[in-house]
Amino acid sequence: MQIIDGGVCAPAGFTANGIHCGIKKGRSTEDLALVESEVPCSAAAVFTKNLVKAEPVKLTKKHISNGRAQAVVLNAGNANACTGEQGYQAARRMANAAAVELGLPEQDVLICSTGVIGQQINIDAIESGIPELCAGLSKTGNVLARKAILTTDTQHKETAIETTIGGKAVKLGTMAKGSGMIHINMGTMLSVITTDCSITPRMLNAALRESVEKTYNCVSVDGDTSTNDTLIILANGLSGNPLISRKNANYRVFVDALNTINTEMARKIAGDGEGAEHLLECTVIGAKNDRSARALAKSVISSSLVKAAFFGKDANWGRILCAMGYSGECFNPEKASVFFNSGSGEVAVFEKGVPLNFDEERARIILSEGTVIIKIVIEDGVGTGTAWGCDLTYEYVKINGDYRT
Amino acid sequence: MQIIDGGVCAPAGFTANGIHCGIKKGRSTEDLALVESEVPCSAAAVFTKNLVKAEPVKLTKKHISNGRAQAVVLNAGNANACTGEQGYQAARRMANAAAVELGLPEQDVLICSTGVIGQQINIDAIESGIPELCAGLSKTGNVLARKAILTTDTQHKETAIETTIGGKAVKLGTMAKGSGMIHINMGTMLSVITTDCSITPRMLNAALRESVEKTYNCVSVDGDTSTNDTLIILANGLSGNPLISRKNANYRVFVDALNTINTEMARKIAGDGEGAEHLLECTVIGAKNDRSARALAKSVISSSLVKAAFFGKDANWGRILCAMGYSGECFNPEKASVFFNSGSGEVAVFEKGVPLNFDEERARIILSEGTVIIKIVIEDGVGTGTAWGCDLTYEYVKINGDYRT
Repeated sequence: MQIIDGGVCAPAGFTANGIHCGIKKGRSTEDLALVESEVPCSAAAVFTKNLVKAEPVKLTKKHISNGRAQAVVLNAGNANACTGEQGYQAARRMANAAAVELGLPEQDVLICSTGVIGQQINIDAIESGIPELCAGLSKTGNVLARKAILTTDTQHKETAIETTIGGKAVKLGTMAKGSGMIHINMGTMLSVITTDCSITPRMLNAALRESVEKTYNCVSVDGDTSTNDTLIILANGLSGNPLISRKNANYRVFVDALNTINTEMARKIAGDGEGAEHLLECTVIGAKNDRSARALAKSVISSSLVKAAFFGKDANWGRILCAMGYSGECFNPEKASVFFNSGSGEVAVFEKGVPLNFDEERARIILSEGTVIIKIVIEDGVGTGTAWGCDLTYEYVKINGDYRT
Repeated sequence: MQIIDGGVCAPAGFTANGIHCGIKKGRSTEDLALVESEVPCSAAAVFTKNLVKAEPVKLTKKHISNGRAQAVVLNAGNANACTGEQGYQAARRMANAAAVELGLPEQDVLICSTGVIGQQINIDAIESGIPELCAGLSKTGNVLARKAILTTDTQHKETAIETTIGGKAVKLGTMAKGSGMIHINMGTMLSVITTDCSITPRMLNAALRESVEKTYNCVSVDGDTSTNDTLIILANGLSGNPLISRKNANYRVFVDALNTINTEMARKIAGDGEGAEHLLECTVIGAKNDRSARALAKSVISSSLVKAAFFGKDANWGRILCAMGYSGECFNPEKASVFFNSGSGEVAVFEKGVPLNFDEERARIILSEGTVIIKIVIEDGVGTGTAWGCDLTYEYVKINGDYRT
């Protein structure tokens, strides 16, 4: 398995593009993206668990119900959520315009929107932009596409890898956007994964769900599960590997590859959380089981107090124990140990239930790095799990105190 | 029912005091408080649901198990949590010192601690201070006691009322501290309620639990349920009302009075949340039932994004719908309406599923008041519920970025 370039365009048969169509007013930055496969794909998706679902989520759920799709259109700047019947019609027009231009059945086009909630989307601008968007599809279009889906993100999020399945080189590529309204039931993000793997829709769906559980569902920026979360995977089969139609060894190789890129994206989304100065990675070792370990880790990285302490580079480990304590998981605090580590070394702060006298200055240096790892060891079993979050900063409050204007 | 002065000293037979014993280093502010009844009381308490419980919580749970107590000692500046066996012994010494000085059985003394987690408490300072603390008990000692329990609170929190039960005047008084690590399963707070009502321990316990459900358990400052939450009620029976031993009309009058003071304290704790500039009160009308209405309201006031928007005086109602959507409660978003109101008037922003064009400037003026009410009307039943929170500010991040030093 190796990392390669090209993002969503890396797998055979996929092209992409991004343009500025006018949803983001007065800005010339890209706001409309397209990813297309030259042949129909097996398709699967995971959506927000929020009861209030954006209109594009409702439409895409319908379109993907047959396990098949060929293109994804995405816009940033407007979430098209809480917009009623008018919003749903706009979503339909968005999918239809792309379908007409690409010569595809409308049902094979999926759509995603992200941005402000509760304002009608400028669908005229999208329709006007679609011809240019489709005409510009190319093998290097991932560069514009990955940019066109960003909102408050400060960095684009993309990766791709190559693995071998049944003797054939299989590629997976992905792009995603963070960075606010992100919580552990599918962080508020949009993400598209492409692959040239040959796999049935049923196995693709199983692989996606299995992978999401320990990657995307272990990310939190601010505890808010959005109305628009959508993670789509398209598999066009062009790599020529033996079709994966059951959970055999090839399926496992595919899931491993999927976990690799999804973990990388989870880290990128958390690290670029709104206002974030630090990526926090919390690993719990020795829990009852993996699920419990992940739940404990998620509770830690979701705590506002833990997040604020890391912003202050303050080794306030008591808040970590506190967050584990209200996670709903059982563990023995008297056998818990906590360590902080980063590129600058490791410090133990709590050992088997007893506070340690540690060097505060050394701890501060360790916590000053961009990526900080919280390692928690308990003695309740062999479960391990990791979750990703970020610190809570003045900048987060600033960004979200006046997001709409 | 009328509001009266005197806080925890208002009911007959209760005295209090507060002193500086030295837990808060280098500061001369009060840090040790005592509330005592001249006769033994029926007693009940509600504690944190956090699995990681502070040592005073463990001890007080034991002491109150017989439904009886006569005094409460409280300290600020150190939570005595995650301190292991040494911490538990310190908790015992704290209760014992007061019991000896007051001439009470040790089991009749309850204790509470609040402050930083994970540092050993200065028990010598507490023991040295106890004689002065007990000697100074008085009917006006509520003024020093209410101050001695504060941490990052900017205001003291106290109230008292008088009601009539069975022809007798019955008084209830209370004091509490906020203001960080506060969430809906018993916000991180300490609170003592005193009353001269005559009521059995069993009925006192039932009344407390009933009242907490819609008062203290509807407050969130930052989503973190602390290790130290303790709410204690002492009833000494000196008002001479007919003993309340079952859920009769007198019991209801007592619960009403309890709800009144607990609601007032819930509002005070939320409004003085760490860094808060606004008290947010969210009322949901027309839910399936009261429990569901409260759950929806709690989800709204717990959202970091909603809280940041109110800090920015930004009428970003989409985030309110989003928070309702991930609350886990069922409702029909297409029949939901949202209004903001305050001393400056009311503005409708979303009506029966459709975004309204409202006057942004007028909305900004309404959201500039210290108390802002979010009114949500849905059409799923006759349930109503209210929850209290505060905005998320730079100051919250500042306070919690470097709390320990």
